[in-house]
Amino acid sequence: MEDRLAIIHDMESSVRSYVRSFPAVFTKAKGCRIWDEEGAEYLDFFSGAGALNYGHNDDNMKKKLVEYIKDDGITHSLDMASTAKVAFLETLRDVILKPRHMDYKVMFPGPTGTNTVESALKLARKMTGRTEIVSFTNGFHGMTVGALSVTGNSMKRRGAGIPLNHTVTMPYDDFMEEDTHDSLHYFERFLQDNGSGVAVPAAVILETVQGEGGINAARMSWIKRLEEICREWGILMIIDDVQAGVGRTGTFFSFEPAGISPDIICLSKSIGGYGMPLAVTLIKPELDDWIPGEHNGTFRGNNPAFITAVESLKYWADPDFEASIQRKAAVVEDFLNEMIAKYPDMKGRRKGRGLMQGIASDVEGFSEKVAEHAFEHKLIMETAGGSDEVFKLFPPINISDEDLREGLTRIEKSIQDTLKSHVSS
Amino acid sequence: MEDRLAIIHDMESSVRSYVRSFPAVFTKAKGCRIWDEEGAEYLDFFSGAGALNYGHNDDNMKKKLVEYIKDDGITHSLDMASTAKVAFLETLRDVILKPRHMDYKVMFPGPTGTNTVESALKLARKMTGRTEIVSFTNGFHGMTVGALSVTGNSMKRRGAGIPLNHTVTMPYDDFMEEDTHDSLHYFERFLQDNGSGVAVPAAVILETVQGEGGINAARMSWIKRLEEICREWGILMIIDDVQAGVGRTGTFFSFEPAGISPDIICLSKSIGGYGMPLAVTLIKPELDDWIPGEHNGTFRGNNPAFITAVESLKYWADPDFEASIQRKAAVVEDFLNEMIAKYPDMKGRRKGRGLMQGIASDVEGFSEKVAEHAFEHKLIMETAGGSDEVFKLFPPINISDEDLREGLTRIEKSIQDTLKSHVSS
Amino acid sequence: MEDRLAIIHDMESSVRSYVRSFPAVFTKAKGCRIWDEEGAEYLDFFSGAGALNYGHNDDNMKKKLVEYIKDDGITHSLDMASTAKVAFLETLRDVILKPRHMDYKVMFPGPTGTNTVESALKLARKMTGRTEIVSFTNGFHGMTVGALSVTGNSMKRRGAGIPLNHTVTMPYDDFMEEDTHDSLHYFERFLQDNGSGVAVPAAVILETVQGEGGINAARMSWIKRLEEICREWGILMIIDDVQAGVGRTGTFFSFEPAGISPDIICLSKSIGGYGMPLAVTLIKPELDDWIPGEHNGTFRGNNPAFITAVESLKYWADPDFEASIQRKAAVVEDFLNEMIAKYPDMKGRRKGRGLMQGIASDVEGFSEKVAEHAFEHKLIMETAGGSDEVFKLFPPINISDEDLREGLTRIEKSIQDTLKSHVSS
Amino acid sequence: MEDRLAIIHDMESSVRSYVRSFPAVFTKAKGCRIWDEEGAEYLDFFSGAGALNYGHNDDNMKKKLVEYIKDDGITHSLDMASTAKVAFLETLRDVILKPRHMDYKVMFPGPTGTNTVESALKLARKMTGRTEIVSFTNGFHGMTVGALSVTGNSMKRRGAGIPLNHTVTMPYDDFMEEDTHDSLHYFERFLQDNGSGVAVPAAVILETVQGEGGINAARMSWIKRLEEICREWGILMIIDDVQAGVGRTGTFFSFEPAGISPDIICLSKSIGGYGMPLAVTLIKPELDDWIPGEHNGTFRGNNPAFITAVESLKYWADPDFEASIQRKAAVVEDFLNEMIAKYPDMKGRRKGRGLMQGIASDVEGFSEKVAEHAFEHKLIMETAGGSDEVFKLFPPINISDEDLREGLTRIEKSIQDTLKSHVSS
Repeated sequence: MEDRLAIIHDMESSVRSYVRSFPAVFTKAKGCRIWDEEGAEYLDFFSGAGALNYGHNDDNMKKKLVEYIKDDGITHSLDMASTAKVAFLETLRDVILKPRHMDYKVMFPGPTGTNTVESALKLARKMTGRTEIVSFTNGFHGMTVGALSVTGNSMKRRGAGIPLNHTVTMPYDDFMEEDTHDSLHYFERFLQDNGSGVAVPAAVILETVQGEGGINAARMSWIKRLEEICREWGILMIIDDVQAGVGRTGTFFSFEPAGISPDIICLSKSIGGYGMPLAVTLIKPELDDWIPGEHNGTFRGNNPAFITAVESLKYWADPDFEASIQRKAAVVEDFLNEMIAKYPDMKGRRKGRGLMQGIASDVEGFSEKVAEHAFEHKLIMETAGGSDEVFKLFPPINISDEDLREGLTRIEKSIQDTLKSHVSS
Repeated sequence: MEDRLAIIHDMESSVRSYVRSFPAVFTKAKGCRIWDEEGAEYLDFFSGAGALNYGHNDDNMKKKLVEYIKDDGITHSLDMASTAKVAFLETLRDVILKPRHMDYKVMFPGPTGTNTVESALKLARKMTGRTEIVSFTNGFHGMTVGALSVTGNSMKRRGAGIPLNHTVTMPYDDFMEEDTHDSLHYFERFLQDNGSGVAVPAAVILETVQGEGGINAARMSWIKRLEEICREWGILMIIDDVQAGVGRTGTFFSFEPAGISPDIICLSKSIGGYGMPLAVTLIKPELDDWIPGEHNGTFRGNNPAFITAVESLKYWADPDFEASIQRKAAVVEDFLNEMIAKYPDMKGRRKGRGLMQGIASDVEGFSEKVAEHAFEHKLIMETAGGSDEVFKLFPPINISDEDLREGLTRIEKSIQDTLKSHVSS
Repeated sequence: MEDRLAIIHDMESSVRSYVRSFPAVFTKAKGCRIWDEEGAEYLDFFSGAGALNYGHNDDNMKKKLVEYIKDDGITHSLDMASTAKVAFLETLRDVILKPRHMDYKVMFPGPTGTNTVESALKLARKMTGRTEIVSFTNGFHGMTVGALSVTGNSMKRRGAGIPLNHTVTMPYDDFMEEDTHDSLHYFERFLQDNGSGVAVPAAVILETVQGEGGINAARMSWIKRLEEICREWGILMIIDDVQAGVGRTGTFFSFEPAGISPDIICLSKSIGGYGMPLAVTLIKPELDDWIPGEHNGTFRGNNPAFITAVESLKYWADPDFEASIQRKAAVVEDFLNEMIAKYPDMKGRRKGRGLMQGIASDVEGFSEKVAEHAFEHKLIMETAGGSDEVFKLFPPINISDEDLREGLTRIEKSIQDTLKSHVSS
Repeated sequence: MEDRLAIIHDMESSVRSYVRSFPAVFTKAKGCRIWDEEGAEYLDFFSGAGALNYGHNDDNMKKKLVEYIKDDGITHSLDMASTAKVAFLETLRDVILKPRHMDYKVMFPGPTGTNTVESALKLARKMTGRTEIVSFTNGFHGMTVGALSVTGNSMKRRGAGIPLNHTVTMPYDDFMEEDTHDSLHYFERFLQDNGSGVAVPAAVILETVQGEGGINAARMSWIKRLEEICREWGILMIIDDVQAGVGRTGTFFSFEPAGISPDIICLSKSIGGYGMPLAVTLIKPELDDWIPGEHNGTFRGNNPAFITAVESLKYWADPDFEASIQRKAAVVEDFLNEMIAKYPDMKGRRKGRGLMQGIASDVEGFSEKVAEHAFEHKLIMETAGGSDEVFKLFPPINISDEDLREGLTRIEKSIQDTLKSHVSS
């Protein structure tokens, strides 16, 4: 073990992070399970930070992928047309967009979350002729300079090495704790008063649930009101659904319960289904006024990922699929509420919605410790929030009830371990 | 055919570009050959703009890839350690770095060229505490805001929708046509004179051969002198080898003949070997002072791409591999020189080096026409340069002599066709 | 008349503004009176927007100024030492700073308000090594790019022609109408949450009463609390007292009643006493770490203005001077309250404090109309606020009771005229 | 003496500079003479860095100024019309503009050089809708953020504390020493190549002789060619004549011998005649599309300065005035050439033109030493250039032949002293 990790330590840049929390060399995986080279088996309640919503190496997708590769299907084709791309577009249209009465053009930016965000910001600025973008406190949208400029985290922002401009941060729902008048009123006042120093922006960019920022879930009424403000002022609404989308919250798009109609939607992570890089920017047709090649990239059509994406989207053709996620989400919710009540020393608050939930502990360092103990119990789980104050549960959305229960059991043990070692000390 | 392309036309964003030049739905590929759904076979002298240096679907890589997937090898693991990553690091070290006496830390940014560039710029700014980056005229480094700020193309820059700052453009080798004193003297004067308005930059970022910018190849003496200037002034030297690297110019790294030792090296495109997204940033150990997670991304370790990358790097263990590329490069060079001499109406100048060559025609629209006729002759070839004035030959670096000859024959036919229709008219 | 104004119309740039509201060619002035070339006499309740706090052409100052010029005293000397400068420094120290137990270094930037603000922002950034400045909604600090970047007015900001960056606008006291928790809590939340997207700034810049922004007066408790926040976070506090300072609010510095100790104080307008250009930046000694010449300018020591400034500061040696201003301020306050009560159709709210008060009317266009009628009644008065919704009373601070009464009478007439023509129509 | 300077040392900010080179408290002045409090008399070959082109306290101007003040003429009136302003506009038109067939609108920005520059940059950006400004190496345009962004000096730029953007520096005439093809070709190449990374700018801003930057005089042919390039590309041409204008080079505007027609002209320093703050921006009528108040300022009409300006402009009604300056310029030129030939150890090169000349010495520290010795010989003279390598002669343009000769004699003595102490050691 040591030897195998040593090469990582010797050769990989100090920027590496998760390998520090999960010091093992992983080798195989299936569903919610992952094995290291020593043969140890782990439950994965991390799911690639939302890139593995269907679990690891789904059998259907795997079968199609292997066939495709064996048949010498096109692997790389820039943005030329391919059989795989055509199939993806058709399936996206027929299974996802049409049933939801959504009409969008599909853009393939580079295959990462930050790239779909960069494409969305560019297009919003181009179509409005304005420069400013409004983002929200504790938003996270990516690490390239454009996406970083709408990201809240101060450590990551400093990493840019240059000032990050052309953006204004507004308070997310619930940012002002004693929120007697809601935080959108601030935004409105800044828009209304032409001495506010804040120009009407090109767009707002919003995560309906903030994954990295602490599993903060905005209320549907807040999201709806934000859309109204955008309409009133001619501001484009960009939903960054990279982490919260593709079923993570119980519906395909995270914003569906709010009944809004975003101008631009950013998807990545689980849109490829199998954990291979893919990103998609959905654009209302009237806004799709790019010059050919105005935003491009080498890997903007990843054909193997199209193949697995097509299979993954078929889950959504099953009329019971959403209900099954929501049912499991309720299990998690009940469990977390129970934990908070049962272990008051944890000083916990439940965060998030769907299968994107967690507990924020007001005890310093508590949540990190829970995640550490979980790893000892062979469960992989991440923390979130500016001070890592939240431990977050990201099981696959198609996890079995048994596996889910097993994971929750291990998490309770980890809480108990932490309370013993941490709080009592 | 029409029907299948129609869905692209209906659903894909107007930003799509290559599908406009190559209107076919491609379905299979092998080596330098690619087939569309109608069964037509094409020679591919485009190679995914440098992402397919080893051709399509190389049999060795394919075999390993299929095995890996069938065995449920880890597909996605963020930056956790995996068997595939360890193998990649070992192979990169043993086959590429050690034999070249190179000592670098390996960073995995997001799996695209623009992402490795963004990581390089961030690190250079952080390690020097300076903000400015010097780039060169007609440089191309990517489409996210940080990379775009060091890209020269005016259409692409305008696409940002915001001013692109913290960069200064200096003239590339040969930018000043009647170059009696070389263009680096300008750069030096700006550094020397403390009233020049140009601060000492954090870094320069250079492509030794500019792919998108017109297949401009800097002289080795120019590159070497640039390195000397950087050393004298404490400026970091970043080589963007995304397109020119991984063998494209005849050596693994494009800068090897110059004998320089860059501080940071950006690789992507063909580093994964098989056309799957992967990017690597190589960093001198003394500069690798990232905070864990200071630059991250969901797809920063693409395990299937590690598997194929390992196989692809084995090509370089063959002591004759470089010579074979260089021999084919000489064939291309001779061919292009012959074409220029034989068809003076083309007003051609040979550009580039290695298997990254082309002809710049001073006849307006000529090169685009050659590429169009080539497509009729079932050869796929791209244009480059600010006015698409260059047609560029990017065959796989392991192409057979027969296929290379066949491709060149089709290109000569395309030149002849163009001269008939274009110049004589 | 027409003829004389015609040359202005023909030759002066369209940027001219007050001459449009007050279409007369003025020729002489004394105290609160000003005469045009036709011999018409006006009461001046505008006082050069705060540059003539001691009225026009004060006899004492005038006498000294004429003597100085006749004696060939130095007029211009860049920042060399001069008899006049030494006298100014001594008087400022002995009459203003010492009695208030204030210890500051004195910087002479260019002789305008915008220049003292630019010097303050530079120094704050230099001394903290940070780039961001927090300004407040409806703040006004000047028209050069640095000062404009902390100014709220959207028309003026757009005038920059470039994005204005490195600043964040926070809500001024009372910006949120139904202010149940005060607006500084909003600022604090952004500081506390390291995912807020707002970095700890170098400084805040504050007008205790916003002159251009609508005669908004912050509460002393709010100002005091802002200072506490600044101390807690190591943020420098810059008070822009260009308009509210030099006695305009009833004390020499506008912030005296709050009991704060700003790090940097910006003075201009009335600091020269006689209406000649002069500006001063007061800097806490421990922050005065400029390199010689790091901020300079041709007119940074205006000797004739030093001469009149010395005389003007002597007003403050009179122990009753402040009380006399405050007594007149009370007269104005009573008058405005009376007007609001007496003329409910005006929908007025009293704004401001000291001799920097006005009425905001909720009737659109009302305040501008009052100012127009006032001009017919031979009283010069300005409007303020983002929609010119406030008419503002800026009489000299040494105005006689009779003149003050006369002015108020004319203002009441103007209100009545406006109500007749505007509201009833 | 000590005592009087002590208060400067104690109270004035460390940013003070000239008082360090010229440690005396000055009290009276007339023409080219200035006296300190100890009674010492100095010849002033500094002329307020070009703010005192007519010498100190010119008798005609003084007489009118005293009369105006005694008569209670308006001192301060913002931008309302005044008798003094009307007179200034008429005189400027009749004496300066009409005889030169120049048609310009007159804008009064704040009364400093940096303010007229800021107004020019704003207007250029507004009228073209572009953001970038091209400035030239070693240009100096002022210290507020907008003007500083087009200033070359690195110490002053760093002083901004924020990155200075939206500008590109191009090489001034003669910046490349061995200038076989002239430096404007470099600029043209960046404009022509749409991959150059440099967008077509809103404007260029040029000093025809760079005062602070080292008394660099551009050739008339170079200036003319720059104008042609501007016309070809639709770039506005701004001449910053703050230091070189108002007769300093032998004609009223410094650019007259080049026969160009700038779009915007910036004047300050000597435009007021008497050393009182005043600035003027001249704008071609078709470009004067400001919104009223879009650029404003408290001291934008300085009436006493209008009074002296009117008198000063009358010098130019004398048909022999220009010839008299040019004759004295020839005297200076001959003298400097003689010095260079006579004292080869000085390693001097003559710089500049008109009464804006100096010697650049290649001996490190030489020029500063000359200026120091000159002060011992009671002559005040400044150095210029990035390393203070130039000592510069700025006598009043109306200096008598005797005084000029006397000054030159003292300068030769200072050179001799320096050679003795500096070079021989």
